[in-house]
Amino acid sequence: MQACLARVAETEPVVQAWAHLDGDHALAQARELDRIRRAGRATGVLHGVPVALKDIVDTADMPTQRGSVIFSGRQSGRDARLVERLREAGAVIMGKTRTTELAYLHPTVTTNPHDPSRTPGGSSSGSAAAVAARHVPLAIGTQTGGSVVRPASFCGVFGFKPSRGIIPRTGVFRTSITLDQIGGFANTLEDMALLVDAIGCYDQDDPASFARPRPGNLAGARAAVPVDPDIAWFDMPYQDRLDADTRAGLEAVLEALGDRVERFPAAPQLVGLTDVHKVIYDYEIAENMHDIARDHGGTLSQEMRAALERGTAISRAQYGEAIEIKASAEAFFVDHFNDFDAILAPSASGQALPLSAGNTGDAVYCTIWTLAGLPCLTLPVLVGADELPIGVQLIGAREQDDRLMRTAAWMQAALTGSAAREEV
Amino acid sequence: MQACLARVAETEPVVQAWAHLDGDHALAQARELDRIRRAGRATGVLHGVPVALKDIVDTADMPTQRGSVIFSGRQSGRDARLVERLREAGAVIMGKTRTTELAYLHPTVTTNPHDPSRTPGGSSSGSAAAVAARHVPLAIGTQTGGSVVRPASFCGVFGFKPSRGIIPRTGVFRTSITLDQIGGFANTLEDMALLVDAIGCYDQDDPASFARPRPGNLAGARAAVPVDPDIAWFDMPYQDRLDADTRAGLEAVLEALGDRVERFPAAPQLVGLTDVHKVIYDYEIAENMHDIARDHGGTLSQEMRAALERGTAISRAQYGEAIEIKASAEAFFVDHFNDFDAILAPSASGQALPLSAGNTGDAVYCTIWTLAGLPCLTLPVLVGADELPIGVQLIGAREQDDRLMRTAAWMQAALTGSAAREEV
Repeated sequence: MQACLARVAETEPVVQAWAHLDGDHALAQARELDRIRRAGRATGVLHGVPVALKDIVDTADMPTQRGSVIFSGRQSGRDARLVERLREAGAVIMGKTRTTELAYLHPTVTTNPHDPSRTPGGSSSGSAAAVAARHVPLAIGTQTGGSVVRPASFCGVFGFKPSRGIIPRTGVFRTSITLDQIGGFANTLEDMALLVDAIGCYDQDDPASFARPRPGNLAGARAAVPVDPDIAWFDMPYQDRLDADTRAGLEAVLEALGDRVERFPAAPQLVGLTDVHKVIYDYEIAENMHDIARDHGGTLSQEMRAALERGTAISRAQYGEAIEIKASAEAFFVDHFNDFDAILAPSASGQALPLSAGNTGDAVYCTIWTLAGLPCLTLPVLVGADELPIGVQLIGAREQDDRLMRTAAWMQAALTGSAAREEV
Repeated sequence: MQACLARVAETEPVVQAWAHLDGDHALAQARELDRIRRAGRATGVLHGVPVALKDIVDTADMPTQRGSVIFSGRQSGRDARLVERLREAGAVIMGKTRTTELAYLHPTVTTNPHDPSRTPGGSSSGSAAAVAARHVPLAIGTQTGGSVVRPASFCGVFGFKPSRGIIPRTGVFRTSITLDQIGGFANTLEDMALLVDAIGCYDQDDPASFARPRPGNLAGARAAVPVDPDIAWFDMPYQDRLDADTRAGLEAVLEALGDRVERFPAAPQLVGLTDVHKVIYDYEIAENMHDIARDHGGTLSQEMRAALERGTAISRAQYGEAIEIKASAEAFFVDHFNDFDAILAPSASGQALPLSAGNTGDAVYCTIWTLAGLPCLTLPVLVGADELPIGVQLIGAREQDDRLMRTAAWMQAALTGSAAREEV
């Protein structure tokens, strides 16, 4: 904990990952956990491990300010359900990391630890940056479009959004009941798996949560594949917007994986899902922000006001149709993963954008997987033209997150020593 | 599940363990769990295992009637927190087992599976009987005095009440916020450990619950002792009331364990704690039943009305003093367990009482351990004069339930083949 705080002291003035960090409180938690260990009491899988929380995750003992002046100083007085799980696992809740405004698009002040002139991505900006800057080994983020995978890619860390319903959302700020999903950041695949195993649980207060057992991600990450996995790649239209170095890097990965990958033209069932995602997101964020917009409209960003305008213009029928298409997309993926272990895809358009771009990057590379509730994992595999990290995304079958982890471990090993990392 | 239901059909007319049991609903859960397994989805540690719940534990899909006409037909519509955990572990919630009136003293109709003319003990009467009758391999009970340990002893099964705060009480009927604790029943030590491991968790809505990691009971039950354990025996005054066969059986156990047991005269710190327990229980049950007594006083049993009268007569000062003595007892046990791995003690006065006694037996052998929040485990070690089971109780250090399990496994092995089982 002291080492973590020392690294914070060193780089936080530039990175600005933290919305709330009380070093004394973190050290007090660590000392108490030391006392428990010395007393021979039980220790959990995260005993003494510092964990950062995106500033939309409630805690009983810290403010949760949601990246907006509207909630400045807000104290929920309660732990989110996932925070209960973290505490029970022995984690130290180190503090709250900066988020874009209300976990939507308007950037916060956090910078990319690899290059302070660039964005860390969003909306889980501070969580990705804090892990990349080694302020903390683990952090919690959320993804409604691409808010875990993209910042992880930009910051050169692992990012994982498990299947919808694995991690309970009670006590986490809601933007979209259909799309909001919780994930995390880590510096290794096994750390990533361990974190999600620790916090996943059934929560009857979260309508997405389910009473079925959780896949064991750590066991998956440590398992050998029974046979070399089958991986799919879709040539989606939006991939025309990839940066040249990213395109080349992904081609190198595809080449390194050889005949394990089958390439498909954009499936007709998939084209158009990005728009379906947008309809649901806009409609639901407008609903969820209704009271905030009414009471504090003047303090909202242009990005948020535009979303509310779009959302308000969407009819109940249009929304209903989008929800129906989403269901058929889910059915498509159930079939698809009978034949494939994972989908390989870009995590983002390329390296982190300059801050001057005024946005945290394009979520389009993530939205259709998020829409379908599939587990999405980004691995920091590539290095871009400016020596900045670029992630590669693997998407797995719903509720078979352990199988995705197993495939990811296989891919990591397959790419080690391959030309892919040096290609670009 | 079908085998369990067949055994229910065979013996339930005499045992009368169940307050609610819908075989079709149980089979539907089992079929769904089969489907998940066949689909290659994750399975939990209790996948497909039928579990019975004492009828004061709320479920979303069944009535919870608390052993009183006052709550006849009551549907909470919500799962207790521990039921969420059971469902996540893959358990089948088989139904609700009969409890004494409001989990207090007035007996229910359940009979002892070993002898239908005897009580199964209480208040968790149906849970102990259902496990003993092999209706179900696991059941949940609660203990405020001795309501897990005594029925387990009478019914010849394992009964375990973990340390206070291990199992969350949210969604379980409250009789005493200070004393109520949750436990379970099983036919083997490992089953017992597995059940408690599956349902223990931190729950901020239960003031007894704690954010620290849970001891691993199954690992404890499977661990070899590093050295032969040190066990204490206290000659408590109330043990004069033990039946002759039980006294002889316990002496045989003490002899078989030889120099691993140190015998103490009743410690001055311990004498009087049964009264302290009584003051707290009466005071708090009177508080908790206040509205029920006001609205439904006429339907309450004589036992309950007497408790309410006693509780109402206790002053705030007397109650406060009892709470203080409880704290000093807890401190006494912290010291004690620096020198000893466990306390050996009777579980009950002897074999199950005849139904004609009109009560479920005396809790006095359990109350001081319950008061101190210590983990209490009863093992079906002895056989009494009428060939009926008699349990032997082990009590461990607070929050070191795994160490207690380890000691219990050692004792089980030490007594196997010893003369103790045949002595009486």
